[in-house]
Amino acid sequence: MNLVTYRPTPEDYAYTFGGRAPVARLRAGDALSVYTEDCFGGKVLGYDDFPSQVCEFPYLNPVTGPFHVEGAEPGDTLAVHFVSITPARDRAVSTTFPHFGALTSTSHTASLQPPLEERIWVYELDVAKGIARYSARNSDYTVDLPLDPMHGTVGVAPAAFESRMTITPDAHGGNMDSPELRAGVTAYFGVNVPGALFALGDGHARQGHGEVCGTAVESAMNTVVVVDVIKGQATPWPRLESDNAIMSTGSARPLEDAYRISQHDLVTWVSGLTGLDTLDAYQLVSQAGEAPVGNVCDPNYTMLAKIEKSVLRGALPYHGVHDRLRAVAARI
Amino acid sequence: MNLVTYRPTPEDYAYTFGGRAPVARLRAGDALSVYTEDCFGGKVLGYDDFPSQVCEFPYLNPVTGPFHVEGAEPGDTLAVHFVSITPARDRAVSTTFPHFGALTSTSHTASLQPPLEERIWVYELDVAKGIARYSARNSDYTVDLPLDPMHGTVGVAPAAFESRMTITPDAHGGNMDSPELRAGVTAYFGVNVPGALFALGDGHARQGHGEVCGTAVESAMNTVVVVDVIKGQATPWPRLESDNAIMSTGSARPLEDAYRISQHDLVTWVSGLTGLDTLDAYQLVSQAGEAPVGNVCDPNYTMLAKIEKSVLRGALPYHGVHDRLRAVAARI
Amino acid sequence: MNLVTYRPTPEDYAYTFGGRAPVARLRAGDALSVYTEDCFGGKVLGYDDFPSQVCEFPYLNPVTGPFHVEGAEPGDTLAVHFVSITPARDRAVSTTFPHFGALTSTSHTASLQPPLEERIWVYELDVAKGIARYSARNSDYTVDLPLDPMHGTVGVAPAAFESRMTITPDAHGGNMDSPELRAGVTAYFGVNVPGALFALGDGHARQGHGEVCGTAVESAMNTVVVVDVIKGQATPWPRLESDNAIMSTGSARPLEDAYRISQHDLVTWVSGLTGLDTLDAYQLVSQAGEAPVGNVCDPNYTMLAKIEKSVLRGALPYHGVHDRLRAVAARI
Amino acid sequence: MNLVTYRPTPEDYAYTFGGRAPVARLRAGDALSVYTEDCFGGKVLGYDDFPSQVCEFPYLNPVTGPFHVEGAEPGDTLAVHFVSITPARDRAVSTTFPHFGALTSTSHTASLQPPLEERIWVYELDVAKGIARYSARNSDYTVDLPLDPMHGTVGVAPAAFESRMTITPDAHGGNMDSPELRAGVTAYFGVNVPGALFALGDGHARQGHGEVCGTAVESAMNTVVVVDVIKGQATPWPRLESDNAIMSTGSARPLEDAYRISQHDLVTWVSGLTGLDTLDAYQLVSQAGEAPVGNVCDPNYTMLAKIEKSVLRGALPYHGVHDRLRAVAARI
Repeated sequence: MNLVTYRPTPEDYAYTFGGRAPVARLRAGDALSVYTEDCFGGKVLGYDDFPSQVCEFPYLNPVTGPFHVEGAEPGDTLAVHFVSITPARDRAVSTTFPHFGALTSTSHTASLQPPLEERIWVYELDVAKGIARYSARNSDYTVDLPLDPMHGTVGVAPAAFESRMTITPDAHGGNMDSPELRAGVTAYFGVNVPGALFALGDGHARQGHGEVCGTAVESAMNTVVVVDVIKGQATPWPRLESDNAIMSTGSARPLEDAYRISQHDLVTWVSGLTGLDTLDAYQLVSQAGEAPVGNVCDPNYTMLAKIEKSVLRGALPYHGVHDRLRAVAARI
Repeated sequence: MNLVTYRPTPEDYAYTFGGRAPVARLRAGDALSVYTEDCFGGKVLGYDDFPSQVCEFPYLNPVTGPFHVEGAEPGDTLAVHFVSITPARDRAVSTTFPHFGALTSTSHTASLQPPLEERIWVYELDVAKGIARYSARNSDYTVDLPLDPMHGTVGVAPAAFESRMTITPDAHGGNMDSPELRAGVTAYFGVNVPGALFALGDGHARQGHGEVCGTAVESAMNTVVVVDVIKGQATPWPRLESDNAIMSTGSARPLEDAYRISQHDLVTWVSGLTGLDTLDAYQLVSQAGEAPVGNVCDPNYTMLAKIEKSVLRGALPYHGVHDRLRAVAARI
Repeated sequence: MNLVTYRPTPEDYAYTFGGRAPVARLRAGDALSVYTEDCFGGKVLGYDDFPSQVCEFPYLNPVTGPFHVEGAEPGDTLAVHFVSITPARDRAVSTTFPHFGALTSTSHTASLQPPLEERIWVYELDVAKGIARYSARNSDYTVDLPLDPMHGTVGVAPAAFESRMTITPDAHGGNMDSPELRAGVTAYFGVNVPGALFALGDGHARQGHGEVCGTAVESAMNTVVVVDVIKGQATPWPRLESDNAIMSTGSARPLEDAYRISQHDLVTWVSGLTGLDTLDAYQLVSQAGEAPVGNVCDPNYTMLAKIEKSVLRGALPYHGVHDRLRAVAARI
Repeated sequence: MNLVTYRPTPEDYAYTFGGRAPVARLRAGDALSVYTEDCFGGKVLGYDDFPSQVCEFPYLNPVTGPFHVEGAEPGDTLAVHFVSITPARDRAVSTTFPHFGALTSTSHTASLQPPLEERIWVYELDVAKGIARYSARNSDYTVDLPLDPMHGTVGVAPAAFESRMTITPDAHGGNMDSPELRAGVTAYFGVNVPGALFALGDGHARQGHGEVCGTAVESAMNTVVVVDVIKGQATPWPRLESDNAIMSTGSARPLEDAYRISQHDLVTWVSGLTGLDTLDAYQLVSQAGEAPVGNVCDPNYTMLAKIEKSVLRGALPYHGVHDRLRAVAARI
């Protein structure tokens, strides 16, 4: 196994999926060790580093990459197995941000009201103990929350010659902000351009469902992935696979369309894996399926449709690539 | 403790919340044992009992009740603790229904497409083993799913002189279709009329998240609850409490508004319980909160906002009524 | 022709459609002359009459009625032709209202932001000149706008034993808030209960599209209508007919569903009137149809689908009842 | 005045806004005469030219351009005055397209239903008489509709390094599909990149409100525009100005957000032009404003907020550039 290590300098980050030259080339089966900055570009470190002052649009939500994967062609699927996601600093931050989040009017759900107060919270991280410590700003109140590191933003170059801001999730992946995208999980992306042009960033030490205030526990990360290419099999929307479950994503507005896309894809996927006809698969997903919420604050909202592998009675998604990458990961 | 038993005859069912005289009167602290019919009124029992033929609008989704609770006045909160929810038959059914469900156009998300095929699935229930057996219709394929009995429809008479079809969830409760409403949970409803006029029905042997095909594993139930009244404390939207978590509900369209309502109520609730100011509570819910999906198929969609009680550092919702009702339940 | 005159006392107003006994009985062909109060119950007359202080929930948006129309049975259609709608006072008012309107967060599109300032505008009406005079509050700025009187709220008792607040538009009509509902227009409602139980209120001296601030130029009205019953023809959603156009309404959230319902009904209606098959009617409506916005602030949003009668090549909606009622109106 | 003529060859068309080199350079004040192909690339000419067969994704909705306008810098506004829009062929076409349109489930409002029948309608155009003739496919039924030529797709390169498919409307313009974009109108776009990189296409011989079936009366066009640059004044969302009215656009999902964006921008714009404070402008727009629907079928839906200039009491938008371009146009 080949391990590629890549650590970007500040000018190396990308702010779009698509429209960027690759920073490195990988072969199927390679492991990749990267550093990713947090969504603020590392500029928000203390209570006075207001994002609206220290961050400059459009230099938000930097991603590391893109990486060209040899042999990935349009119509194929890129598999990205997350081996480890480890906070790179001993603290992480969260903030409100003017007119961004689910419990505020926004640029699109526009109102004439002034924004909420911009406030910063600093979380102390203890990786050894697996803890992210919440501290209130206006009370003497702390809570230790379980560390659950994940990447909010992972994706490939979009189709149709598009370049999209890293903050937007869509069929190419992007800023899905789902806690399900943690270590031990394989993500699948449909390839739209030669080499796939995979990139990742926006680490979260942990995140609630929907990222309701607009940001998670934002953290720089040291992350290791293994990549593979599944030739000749397309993937319409990003999918995830853990040891126990398969998941489809959908990113859209209104939120019910994110739900519909993800459930529709899961029904189709389960039907293909089990041989059940569409309505029988629809019924099975209806009674056994889950619907984890990703984000309800980004330009598109993200929901997942999830089902335990046990209902598949042994069928192997993508010919068992998840298990193979698990084995590769164990050897790193 | 007083145990009231009520078993309705077919003509006793209600099809609205509001606009009905009570079928019985309870006192705070009473236990109530009831039978509830399934959403089809018990008329769909086999593969040929197509709901569009055997059911007649508006005689759908019957509820048992309403029950007048002594002393419940507008501005108070009714607590309903679910002691047990037990399937009353050894089989349950699920169906597609023309132009109803999340992966079909509907009367409101209207299209010119014909409906999906109307199909019925019969689940064998084994209460002792805790299993509901899915059997495909067009394949030789069965899966044993965990039994997880719940009530899809629970609520009180609405405010503002309204009567609402039992199929519609809103601020009075109704057809929220959340798997979280299972035995061991206390539900809280704001009281809008003297006596609250509580009713329940629509049992599900289990349900996936969102009830994507429009129906769950629909089951008649034998159910026991204990009721209580919390005087002088209003509850804006139905809330749930389990041993480990508190939950707010929101029912609305589009789905993001159900999310917003529920998260807003949980932020407010957590703020009140902990003394955190609004933004500090917003931040805590953002990172520690969950967002279980109820239904994405009814006239209003339902989402829950949920947080572990551990973050409350000992604060007791509604002055500890859940624990007291738990204790009462243990004596039944 | 019989002319019934009805002037309510304050305690006579209704606040729901459904759940009320009729205040008078009409026969098909009768004319009805009524007074309707404004949406504030006439309590907001000057700059200091803040609705949040002088109005009491749920006593908002009073309607005059309901009226029982002899011979109207479920499955029939009630036709209500608006002969005249005349402001009853020489001034009308508009206001912002806390957390109500399209450019503010609301109870359902919930945010943590405080409400906009509550402010009242008083319009001088000159019926003879056909003018409603806007006067800014914080500038010396007036504009004379054309008077265009209409009723925001018109409807019948809902189906399925429901009672609905008058502020909510739905398939029974209600608070559609469409400027198209002016004198010279015939409104059609599907009958759900014997006698139809028709009521009306919420006069507007004029209104912009969508009622973006949440209220129109709210005005008490003296209104004359003529009613008729079309036997054996159902109407799924309220429809309007003017001398030149036919219109279908849809009331729902999100707004695209109001659009879909109304366009779907118009396509179906045009298909029935012209003999075009569904797709040919879809195409004709697509290129020749309009989509007037009703409200984007009420519990359901309302849109209309409208098409010129000229494309119908002489087909007569509802067997020409509009023309007959026009003739009756001319004799009053 | 300088007149630039540009006629693209088939390989010259662009399929994105952004990510393309300019095809020509213009100076402020130049007139530009262009040919634009229809949204099908001219490949759908008769009843058997099914778009799903003759068109290839992503080569849909070609635009002519982009054009670099000298002196246009980020933060400026580009003014594009439409002098004339003339159908280039004597026939135009419309179609249903699988899973596209408002009265069908789509890729995003996903259902398990099969698509509607794909059908093509051919309209005969008579420019001299101003007529587009509808002919039904399954009936002997024709209707002459008024010709009302417009461009569905007009815009500039997006901000934030993005490239967007021409089918998507957003803050940069794009596929807004509004009938208001006709000859005699000036369109304003915020400039995001040096030279603005303006492009246009997707001519419609006419269009109903919302483009409900997904396509309009699609027509190649010969179009003349005059361009100008307003230095130092930004424009957040595309705006239009006719001789009598000003209009703001909003493009988003759900449709109420398109409404909110456009109304919010119009309130802000009116406030700036008149000196009214925000709430006084909100009130004026609420009672005097209109809300023309653009599209309810594209990746974002588009609505306009419109108000008669008469309410502005003489204030001149963009320092009167519309009147000056009108005068220039008269000399061509």
